[in-house]
Amino acid sequence: MFPLNKQLVDQTCCDFGLRNAHELGAASIRQLVGVVKDIERATGEEFVHMELGEPGLPAETIGIAAEHEALLQGYGSKYPIITGIPELKHWGSEFVRAFVGLDIPDNCIVPTVGSMQAAFALNTLLAQIDDKRDTVLFIDPCFPVQKQQCKVIGIRVDCFDVADFRGDALEAELERHFKTGRIAGMLFSNPNNPSWMCLTERELEIIGRLATKYNVMVIEDLAYLNMDFREKRGVPYEEPYQPSVGRYTHNCVHMISASKMFSYAGQRGAIIAMNPYLAQRCYPSLAERYGNDGQFLRNFVYIILYSLSSGVTHSVQFAMAAMFRAACQGKINFVQNTREYERRAHRIKEIMVRNGFHIVYDKDADDRPVGDGFFFTFGYKDWTGEQMLNKLIYYGVSAIALGSTGAKREGMRGCASAIREDQYEELDKRLAKFNEDFGK
Amino acid sequence: MFPLNKQLVDQTCCDFGLRNAHELGAASIRQLVGVVKDIERATGEEFVHMELGEPGLPAETIGIAAEHEALLQGYGSKYPIITGIPELKHWGSEFVRAFVGLDIPDNCIVPTVGSMQAAFALNTLLAQIDDKRDTVLFIDPCFPVQKQQCKVIGIRVDCFDVADFRGDALEAELERHFKTGRIAGMLFSNPNNPSWMCLTERELEIIGRLATKYNVMVIEDLAYLNMDFREKRGVPYEEPYQPSVGRYTHNCVHMISASKMFSYAGQRGAIIAMNPYLAQRCYPSLAERYGNDGQFLRNFVYIILYSLSSGVTHSVQFAMAAMFRAACQGKINFVQNTREYERRAHRIKEIMVRNGFHIVYDKDADDRPVGDGFFFTFGYKDWTGEQMLNKLIYYGVSAIALGSTGAKREGMRGCASAIREDQYEELDKRLAKFNEDFGK
Repeated sequence: MFPLNKQLVDQTCCDFGLRNAHELGAASIRQLVGVVKDIERATGEEFVHMELGEPGLPAETIGIAAEHEALLQGYGSKYPIITGIPELKHWGSEFVRAFVGLDIPDNCIVPTVGSMQAAFALNTLLAQIDDKRDTVLFIDPCFPVQKQQCKVIGIRVDCFDVADFRGDALEAELERHFKTGRIAGMLFSNPNNPSWMCLTERELEIIGRLATKYNVMVIEDLAYLNMDFREKRGVPYEEPYQPSVGRYTHNCVHMISASKMFSYAGQRGAIIAMNPYLAQRCYPSLAERYGNDGQFLRNFVYIILYSLSSGVTHSVQFAMAAMFRAACQGKINFVQNTREYERRAHRIKEIMVRNGFHIVYDKDADDRPVGDGFFFTFGYKDWTGEQMLNKLIYYGVSAIALGSTGAKREGMRGCASAIREDQYEELDKRLAKFNEDFGK
Repeated sequence: MFPLNKQLVDQTCCDFGLRNAHELGAASIRQLVGVVKDIERATGEEFVHMELGEPGLPAETIGIAAEHEALLQGYGSKYPIITGIPELKHWGSEFVRAFVGLDIPDNCIVPTVGSMQAAFALNTLLAQIDDKRDTVLFIDPCFPVQKQQCKVIGIRVDCFDVADFRGDALEAELERHFKTGRIAGMLFSNPNNPSWMCLTERELEIIGRLATKYNVMVIEDLAYLNMDFREKRGVPYEEPYQPSVGRYTHNCVHMISASKMFSYAGQRGAIIAMNPYLAQRCYPSLAERYGNDGQFLRNFVYIILYSLSSGVTHSVQFAMAAMFRAACQGKINFVQNTREYERRAHRIKEIMVRNGFHIVYDKDADDRPVGDGFFFTFGYKDWTGEQMLNKLIYYGVSAIALGSTGAKREGMRGCASAIREDQYEELDKRLAKFNEDFGK
């Protein structure tokens, strides 16, 4: 029965270490997941979970079979080659060619322990390539842990909300930041987590051109590669490809994670695809620090990745190689598979809007509506994200407040992946009751 | 035929990017591995490989089975809990109780992507816990990549060669370093990589007592846990246990890797076992930096490990849990299994000494001979390690120069793991020829 018993929920929050349900907004996502589980146990009511950005589909069986085979062949006892197994380098390169339309040679494909490790390694190098540049620029809203990495490393963060600077307006805003001379690199995800806005080829051209002009390294997070489902993409080696800044500058690295594309989040597998010109570039400050020629790729692999984990789990490298290969050969249609998230998001958003909620980041570039995909943003009246969270918790709906993502707009981030077929009706009922209680 | 054709070997070194075979001493271990493979191809002669510290036994099948089972159960798509799956925390805690004789509660057991990630995470925190302490102290000789981590992170390194300060002499030397007030933490492996010297309970007592007195955090690397084969250890829950600093100070963390114990190096699995008092300790500078209560364990897990890789490969966590459990229940006798390295090292060392070589770090504490195990050190006359490497390469024997390990003594590090039964005779012949050519 909703709303849930207030005393019971508040008590559960207290038992978890929060003072009351009103502190939920300030809780980290990991804390939120924990407290919601406790509330489910205490009340006996299952939540509609939209807080965790976890795949809602089973892991690709081709990957699982490849891992088992590799372990049976004895790779478990052998240290993984730090540069990556040859099959992964080859099929990673092919995958980028087939689905992004870029030529990145095998030697510039390197596995990482998820894109989390890739971003940590790249942010570490950004802090070290030029003494005069002390800042990483983020396009907000963003995945907050990448900013946390900068705090760990000790490099400054700058940012702006991209919704205010779409299209040609992006150029002036970027120049404003780049002209300070402090920006070592910039990081964005496309499609955007959490808003699902997608940077266009025109915008990526602006980013690429200015990155070259101002010597700023671009880190492009392609976690949701080809998941702008408004376009019909995903046929290997055929346009339209994933839009990429790689067509407009040499000064870039792409992060490609298996987590969402192949529902492989548990195994922590990703690759970076490094522009071959950047790979060979030598940085005097790296040369001095590490006593070598300062080459970017060499230091990325042999100094940074080696220090971080001695490479990537051997069997997972075989899984990624097999999945990339299958995708290139048309045996895994990962775009078609992940379209399930489009359907789920579409239905959830429709229910929300019908019950008095609105989509916060609703417009994409050129005033097109934002597409449906893995994440979406939603608001209620003029409430803050924290206010929403603190009330929705009594209605059995969980999501995270947008505040942590650097969004200038108020609201929440929802993930469409976890909802089950039997939960839409329940979501509708709960939000209707919520709106009945607060909608006057 | 040995020595190998000089021109051919030198040409191969040049083709690899070195100026000649005399640059081998300066090559990194990864480069050495590459160039030796090329020389094998060019000459058609297989080397006796002693350069890589890789397990020479197959990975534990119990781990492999557990990984497969976890993947079949659907864990591949689910983000691993950052604190570790409950089974691993439980059996990790039991394992420490059974084989180290310490009580570390479940919540202080946390998985890492190999001990490499654990050391990186801990060194990162050492750089941040106290503004006045800017140094990590290493007991040399050591595993050089842990010092490289400090260079990446930007924390100063200090060190001393432990062979010069065994027993009671350790106290004065440690105090000399600790009294500077600059030491945030210290790191050592026991048994020692590369010398296979083993710190005694008496020495660990000194370290622990001074660590408490001077508020220095001790990181104890137990990669070769219970592999001091001179003692009969390895019966679960029975003395003698692995000697550990954890009996003498609360200010310590233990790193326990599956790589050598279970021959699981390819899968990058380890745990840290953190002293529960240290785990709960709050550091004001962490509180300020990360906007929380500054608790050590919380920041280690939710800030550092989360930023580094979002946790450890899901299936590998199940493998570790299963192997720790099997070891506790007497179903895997990892000490007995790894005794194979003792036998191999014993035979190799005997062949070396018979052919004019000597053991560089030959004495352990109290003038006992150093035991036989995974690594050993060897010298030739008064040659430097680089000189030895540059000559041995023509005799089909590869190992690394001790210089990179911080050793004060000259010589090489050999790993006993990779030699095959049919290679001892060949090694004997080659070293005899070497000694015939240079022994006058």
